[in-house]
Amino acid sequence: MALIVQKFGGTSVGSIERIQAVADKVIKSRKQGHQIVVVVSAMSGETDRLLGLSGEISSQVSKRELDVLLSTGEQVTIALLSMALEAKGCAAESFTGGQVCILTDSVHSKARIMEIDAQRVSKALEDEKVVVVAGFQGIDADGNITTLGRGGSDTTAVALAAALEAQECHIYTDVDGVYTADPRIVNMARRIDRIAYEEMLEMASLGSKVLQIRSVEFASKYNVSLRVLSSFEEGPGTLITTEDKSMEQVLISGIAHNRDEAKLTIRGVPDTPGIASRILGPIAKANIEVDMIIQNIGDDKSTNFTFTVHRGDYKRGLEVLQGISEELGADGVSGDDNIVKISVVGVGMRSHAGIASQMFEALATEGINIQMISTSEIKISVVVDEKYLELGVRTLHSTFGLDKGN
Amino acid sequence: MALIVQKFGGTSVGSIERIQAVADKVIKSRKQGHQIVVVVSAMSGETDRLLGLSGEISSQVSKRELDVLLSTGEQVTIALLSMALEAKGCAAESFTGGQVCILTDSVHSKARIMEIDAQRVSKALEDEKVVVVAGFQGIDADGNITTLGRGGSDTTAVALAAALEAQECHIYTDVDGVYTADPRIVNMARRIDRIAYEEMLEMASLGSKVLQIRSVEFASKYNVSLRVLSSFEEGPGTLITTEDKSMEQVLISGIAHNRDEAKLTIRGVPDTPGIASRILGPIAKANIEVDMIIQNIGDDKSTNFTFTVHRGDYKRGLEVLQGISEELGADGVSGDDNIVKISVVGVGMRSHAGIASQMFEALATEGINIQMISTSEIKISVVVDEKYLELGVRTLHSTFGLDKGN
Repeated sequence: MALIVQKFGGTSVGSIERIQAVADKVIKSRKQGHQIVVVVSAMSGETDRLLGLSGEISSQVSKRELDVLLSTGEQVTIALLSMALEAKGCAAESFTGGQVCILTDSVHSKARIMEIDAQRVSKALEDEKVVVVAGFQGIDADGNITTLGRGGSDTTAVALAAALEAQECHIYTDVDGVYTADPRIVNMARRIDRIAYEEMLEMASLGSKVLQIRSVEFASKYNVSLRVLSSFEEGPGTLITTEDKSMEQVLISGIAHNRDEAKLTIRGVPDTPGIASRILGPIAKANIEVDMIIQNIGDDKSTNFTFTVHRGDYKRGLEVLQGISEELGADGVSGDDNIVKISVVGVGMRSHAGIASQMFEALATEGINIQMISTSEIKISVVVDEKYLELGVRTLHSTFGLDKGN
Repeated sequence: MALIVQKFGGTSVGSIERIQAVADKVIKSRKQGHQIVVVVSAMSGETDRLLGLSGEISSQVSKRELDVLLSTGEQVTIALLSMALEAKGCAAESFTGGQVCILTDSVHSKARIMEIDAQRVSKALEDEKVVVVAGFQGIDADGNITTLGRGGSDTTAVALAAALEAQECHIYTDVDGVYTADPRIVNMARRIDRIAYEEMLEMASLGSKVLQIRSVEFASKYNVSLRVLSSFEEGPGTLITTEDKSMEQVLISGIAHNRDEAKLTIRGVPDTPGIASRILGPIAKANIEVDMIIQNIGDDKSTNFTFTVHRGDYKRGLEVLQGISEELGADGVSGDDNIVKISVVGVGMRSHAGIASQMFEALATEGINIQMISTSEIKISVVVDEKYLELGVRTLHSTFGLDKGN
């Protein structure tokens, strides 16, 4: 018998029929002898309906009240799922974020969980009940309702799993696991059985949108084993857990990519201390997030400075950079929003040399020009022209032995 | 400056437009220098929508979870109204029943308020905020969400007014006050300026559905002055308060009626002690509520026993009574579901004799036959054939000097 936290997102509970299916799934786990805590999101469409109502009042509503409004979405789901469980003869009890004391800070609409007092949940589990908890929400120290922001239900699930010392935290999604690459691009992509937290973080931040980054960070911090599963089909899914020996044997876990990038360059800026912050300061002030940053070595007195931003921020970034260029007396700015980022990720990299050169060689063989390079301990990313995306990902997937049947 | 509790029902907050109108009304009171606590119901239609969802799951859902589900209705309204107030520049803060510690018993779906800890509300009022509270809901001692049942928002408002020692509790409805009779029947009906709690209770129980009986009882118990006002037009409304000298001068306050009645008679039952309970016991067991009860004096050995029930219970009542009749060896049963009850209500009755004879005489003059009579200290009710309803009410309205312009 194990204690398992199961999280179902908005699509999985999007209709009464689907809520009934979730109830069946929960009962199946219960019958295997497990104690079950279920975390649910608002029914898909409900949050938008509520936002529509508040939007009719004003485009700038009080964030405190928006949290009061939106938190009703999950409250509806916990009640309906508990009803469905009880109607099927499975004792269940629902709790709002406040009722299970999910204590957060007071930053409405993107609060962070500070503490969970899991007593009430433990009590209900002892009473042989399935515990159904509203995701995405908590209360602050003054008892105000808060919400955790997008993807917050995953974080609720992981936080509860940590507080309850659950054996595993199951995240049900519309895919059946984490893949070695996007199966829409690489038809030879394989589902990964086990992946380390750091790898998953790199994959997530690079565009594999199976899990919210915050929930993976949280799981890593509190050592909660996460399993990504499909809401709609049976299967073992992908286990996200601490790195182990067997993982080190695997060189590369997956090939990630991100289409959503654009590149900005400022040429001929004086190569003096503090120049990076004089460039990136105004960019940050304009609320533009910067991803990769590369400063090329130039001649004696000047240098070129390149960085990537979200594609949606490209035009605004170019304008801001134009201003900076004039101010600094640089040679000019240029940019390109037809680029993508491709990365190889794997904790095996730590103990194996030569991954980078193997990667660059494979790309060169296919005639793919590399525009930028950035590396971390367990990841190598390159920026290439958008037209090479599919070819690049497939080439690397095959090069590192990830294709199905290998 | 006074502290006023204002309650707006589902129709008054049935759309964003109406919520904006309520916000304007609240701000107007605020600008007159009053401290305002607003109690709101779910937007009209919302409770039915939620009941529809739970009905899709099962016809017999857990009452605890139904309360979790339905309580979201008011939570949506408090958030939207607070947003509307803030958008109009009026500081406001919303609270669920649990957040303002409306402590109830644990009888889900018809919980009773045990205690209110008004500290949080007082604090927000001190901070110069309008306090917006979800009606109809509370929490029990274990922190479970409860609802107060139909009309519960009125009770929430009165209970808060009592706890806060508010000067008045304003109940906004779709009518502009309590009338001397139903204006749809008596076009000479007048709005009553002041009415005593007991009179209002009699009027309410007799079918004047302006206020829920429970909220009037509560107001009477805690001496809260209630004012019934229109959500849609300006006006002083009707003040419901303790009886005072000026009220005693008024003989009759109003003429109430109830169409929803049916009459059942069991004839020739043995006139022995305990006979009433042998008849009414099985009726109560069948969950049929009995209103008026009359036992006529019969001959030496037997008597006729008549009572009225809700018209919807008529057929079932007749069946149950048939069984009782056979068991007791009575002469038989009969019934009539074409009857109505008409009542004259007034605290002035206490100090004035002859009201009853005046009433019966007026009805006789119009040829209206009285089938049953029942009296209390401040009310006389008669049962008559349904066809006499309008004539009877108008006649008595005029007889007791209630017509407009008098």
